[in-house]
Amino acid sequence: MEKKKILLDCDPGHDDAVAIMLAAGAPSLELLGVTVESGNQTLEKTVRNTCRVLQWIGREDVPVYAGCDRPMVRDKLTAGDIHGETGLDGPVFPPLRKQPESEHAVSFLIRTLRAYEGDITVVTTGPMTNLAMALRLAPEIAEKIRRIVLMGGSCTNGNVSPAAEFNILADPEAAHVCFTAGRPLTMVGLDVTRRVLCTPEVVARMAALDTCASRLFVDLMGHFCRTQKAIFGWAGGPLHDPVTIAYLIDPAVLTTRPMNAQIDLSRGPSYGRTNCDAYDYLGLPATADVAVDIDAERFWDLVEEGLARYGKEAQA
Amino acid sequence: MEKKKILLDCDPGHDDAVAIMLAAGAPSLELLGVTVESGNQTLEKTVRNTCRVLQWIGREDVPVYAGCDRPMVRDKLTAGDIHGETGLDGPVFPPLRKQPESEHAVSFLIRTLRAYEGDITVVTTGPMTNLAMALRLAPEIAEKIRRIVLMGGSCTNGNVSPAAEFNILADPEAAHVCFTAGRPLTMVGLDVTRRVLCTPEVVARMAALDTCASRLFVDLMGHFCRTQKAIFGWAGGPLHDPVTIAYLIDPAVLTTRPMNAQIDLSRGPSYGRTNCDAYDYLGLPATADVAVDIDAERFWDLVEEGLARYGKEAQA
Amino acid sequence: MEKKKILLDCDPGHDDAVAIMLAAGAPSLELLGVTVESGNQTLEKTVRNTCRVLQWIGREDVPVYAGCDRPMVRDKLTAGDIHGETGLDGPVFPPLRKQPESEHAVSFLIRTLRAYEGDITVVTTGPMTNLAMALRLAPEIAEKIRRIVLMGGSCTNGNVSPAAEFNILADPEAAHVCFTAGRPLTMVGLDVTRRVLCTPEVVARMAALDTCASRLFVDLMGHFCRTQKAIFGWAGGPLHDPVTIAYLIDPAVLTTRPMNAQIDLSRGPSYGRTNCDAYDYLGLPATADVAVDIDAERFWDLVEEGLARYGKEAQA
Amino acid sequence: MEKKKILLDCDPGHDDAVAIMLAAGAPSLELLGVTVESGNQTLEKTVRNTCRVLQWIGREDVPVYAGCDRPMVRDKLTAGDIHGETGLDGPVFPPLRKQPESEHAVSFLIRTLRAYEGDITVVTTGPMTNLAMALRLAPEIAEKIRRIVLMGGSCTNGNVSPAAEFNILADPEAAHVCFTAGRPLTMVGLDVTRRVLCTPEVVARMAALDTCASRLFVDLMGHFCRTQKAIFGWAGGPLHDPVTIAYLIDPAVLTTRPMNAQIDLSRGPSYGRTNCDAYDYLGLPATADVAVDIDAERFWDLVEEGLARYGKEAQA
Repeated sequence: MEKKKILLDCDPGHDDAVAIMLAAGAPSLELLGVTVESGNQTLEKTVRNTCRVLQWIGREDVPVYAGCDRPMVRDKLTAGDIHGETGLDGPVFPPLRKQPESEHAVSFLIRTLRAYEGDITVVTTGPMTNLAMALRLAPEIAEKIRRIVLMGGSCTNGNVSPAAEFNILADPEAAHVCFTAGRPLTMVGLDVTRRVLCTPEVVARMAALDTCASRLFVDLMGHFCRTQKAIFGWAGGPLHDPVTIAYLIDPAVLTTRPMNAQIDLSRGPSYGRTNCDAYDYLGLPATADVAVDIDAERFWDLVEEGLARYGKEAQA
Repeated sequence: MEKKKILLDCDPGHDDAVAIMLAAGAPSLELLGVTVESGNQTLEKTVRNTCRVLQWIGREDVPVYAGCDRPMVRDKLTAGDIHGETGLDGPVFPPLRKQPESEHAVSFLIRTLRAYEGDITVVTTGPMTNLAMALRLAPEIAEKIRRIVLMGGSCTNGNVSPAAEFNILADPEAAHVCFTAGRPLTMVGLDVTRRVLCTPEVVARMAALDTCASRLFVDLMGHFCRTQKAIFGWAGGPLHDPVTIAYLIDPAVLTTRPMNAQIDLSRGPSYGRTNCDAYDYLGLPATADVAVDIDAERFWDLVEEGLARYGKEAQA
Repeated sequence: MEKKKILLDCDPGHDDAVAIMLAAGAPSLELLGVTVESGNQTLEKTVRNTCRVLQWIGREDVPVYAGCDRPMVRDKLTAGDIHGETGLDGPVFPPLRKQPESEHAVSFLIRTLRAYEGDITVVTTGPMTNLAMALRLAPEIAEKIRRIVLMGGSCTNGNVSPAAEFNILADPEAAHVCFTAGRPLTMVGLDVTRRVLCTPEVVARMAALDTCASRLFVDLMGHFCRTQKAIFGWAGGPLHDPVTIAYLIDPAVLTTRPMNAQIDLSRGPSYGRTNCDAYDYLGLPATADVAVDIDAERFWDLVEEGLARYGKEAQA
Repeated sequence: MEKKKILLDCDPGHDDAVAIMLAAGAPSLELLGVTVESGNQTLEKTVRNTCRVLQWIGREDVPVYAGCDRPMVRDKLTAGDIHGETGLDGPVFPPLRKQPESEHAVSFLIRTLRAYEGDITVVTTGPMTNLAMALRLAPEIAEKIRRIVLMGGSCTNGNVSPAAEFNILADPEAAHVCFTAGRPLTMVGLDVTRRVLCTPEVVARMAALDTCASRLFVDLMGHFCRTQKAIFGWAGGPLHDPVTIAYLIDPAVLTTRPMNAQIDLSRGPSYGRTNCDAYDYLGLPATADVAVDIDAERFWDLVEEGLARYGKEAQA
């Protein structure tokens, strides 16, 4: 079977880190590179975190590209309350060897998409700034994107404002550019990611694997679940970002429905909301395949399989 | 026990009609009058429908007041797709005797609230135009309102746009005026009303009562459930409006939580959304007691009790 | 010649006071009543100021009606910086005899418009709250309005925000209701009122009349021009409100052009702007006759004639 | 005297063409390159037009870079009604030799600004897309910009909507990025450019020079003034874009005042308005030096001097 080529754009971030581990290890995926932007923390920190994770799992060969350090239009928004001062609080990382490439993430995205035959899936698990900038600088790359799969948005309520989810609110204009790019797009929003809470049972199950990846997972979730609980009162943190990778490994993990989805750009109290027209009130063409249900059991199996693939020893 | 004095403001509408029947019959409630505005249909029709229902159940003594025939600021929005050409399609009504009073609904609201000692609960099951107009014409009545209980809004998604519920979208500015009036306010939104679907089983249960009220209920629900099903695909229509009255009869039917709630006035795609800050992201004072859960069994019991109270013969 | 019947709705305010004096004295106008709302100062103060002016000029027979004490939807905005603590700082008024009627201004507007044959011009020199509320409570009065003549708006820039003029920004939603009422409407905005600055020469000219009205004018302008100069650096305060009355006495004082005019309700930085489409960019129907030029010499003649009509003695 | 280094970003367009001729010929300016975006016409056409003008005046040595073919966020807006099908209707151009460079305009802007010591003035006479994209991709270049001088905006009313000027409305989000970049910025808006109408007298005066540049000027203005007259009814087209270059040659041509300037991003009827706080209503820090007056005589002298500098023969 041919591997699915993916570009992963992220802002680690605890759940991004897990997404990277799953993406880098999946036999069915070919991870062409990881692009990074500010989001969960500042660009400097999210780039460092990306390198730390790849070094930890022995995948320093995957190139990392630093991208935009602020949103397209709005002022900067980060999520230090959830992800901590470093953006990846919790684990103790060894000295960092792995460095990002010198090329700008946006330039890399454009160059790579141009070089392939339209068979690349772009996965975003942070604000969509890098991809949107690439689409505006070189609009012809749109047709080279097989599909955009994003973690972001919500059909119901938000996780940073009553209306908006973090990745979208952190750059609503970028999300608008991507949602209107005319390409197949799968929105993996809070509607499904809130159904995969990383409870103590889940952590214990992954801890039992005792691989380098599972140990990192356990250390990450220790911090992540504590801050999520403090804010939302949940039994565990929702493992948002890895759902995108799980879906690419096994599409059956999600149920999606085509809908018209429109980003609120009003700058009022609903700024950044993803208005998904589940009941077709507006009679407009569908623009997104919106994840409406998740097979949580299958998801956790995929996470377990992903973490199990790595060796016992951290590569650091 | 002293009866709870209520003013009911509505726009019948099938579920408003059921709310009227429950409110007019409840031993614990004193229905001081019914005020009407445009909403589910035009004012002329919603007034006629109110009179029809009261005549049908033999309560022509309850005064009816016609109010605003359009929203405060925005252009008119009606819901003929759900409620039909008459606004109360389905039942066959006898010739109409009952007439509305000559006084304007807004004038009646102001006069009545002034005349009492702050012990009146205002229930709105339509757009909040009449109440908002009263509050702006005579702001001192605010302190005479014991509590506002409204059917409207949603913490998640809407039922006429992806963001907005009908009663709010039909007059977002009026809702803003009421939500910021500084009075206790209970928002009964889609979050709970969608959990009380009027299924064929429910209809059969009420039909068995064989009172004039239950027969009207059955005829109303025949039409209402058919159109709701066509649009939403549900097993039955959500019995939105009566939840407010059931809550006044027995507050235990709802679980509410205090939240900051802000109406989207942006005129963008989320216009009319009720942004309820369930997780206190914004750190603002609570402005509404938002219904977050409903005891559906208790609710249907209350509806049944309410319909059973009426005699066998329609009074028409 | 038949007198032109007018209703004057205002929020005195220094320039409103001059408008009242011109309207009450003009032989060609029949002033049916003065309605008042909050604006330049709170309602209590603007009502008192209205009574003071009418008493001063011996026109206690003109009925005064207190109306809305806040805007339709937005939070209250006053202009104490321009008009002072009393809303009419400057003159020393004698003890107040004249009292407002007990009827609400909005009720009076509705009742009066209904009672006449469509020959009433409604002049507003404050926020348009009272008129908008009347139009929403009793939409059928719209066709009884011969024309709305308002002081407010601007085709260019504002006088309280870069985009908005005070009377409109103080209640943009009310302005929207009036501008979309489907009646002939003349907008007298900053575009012309800024061309009639009340310079020291003007004040001296009016002072020479030595009537009770001219003496009040001089005392009013002393304060008004001082605060306008402090804020705008102008040689004199623009005599905004009286332009409406001058125009009704002699339409030749203004050049108007039909345009589509749309109120900005966005709540962004241009909230309250009157977007007047002078060049018909939008291709929409004209909704307002917008004053684009003023015959300043003729205007000052009309003011002088108006102030000269009164006797030497204040009636207080 | 050291030459002033400039980068010119434009979307020719008739008045852009004149700006190019002035910029390329001024002894006091060093034109490092011309970057182009869509605006007055599509990117393909504006790039071709830029090359045509440079070839015509014998300046094929000036490098031209094609940039963004659409705005950052909003949908595309062009101005074919003013500039015609080609974007430069009127003149007959010889076969085109001059070609744009292969590097993207945004990349060239970043590379060039990085390479110099902060002594480059960036002039934009089109939508500000290219500059905004550069600022977002490489924020550190901001401090390398000596000053941004833009033709765009208006303190009063617009030229494509009642509120907005074309260059800003064509990409309001880009303008916002540039206006908030924290660099000195001179806004040359309609407030001054509408005072330099290219009347038949002006055209005759330039025709008398009989240089290749003046002949192109005459051919351009023939079309431009005809379409401007048809839309605005003016005696001649406002020579918007060249005012920026005239100002760089001789700053005395403009009077500017520091103001807070805020772009309307609301997507309501005032979308794209430049809210310039001339009277400091808002009490916010100044963000732009806004041109409020122009020495029209001096301006036309500068245009004449600029066109006279070229030889008799077109270089084509």
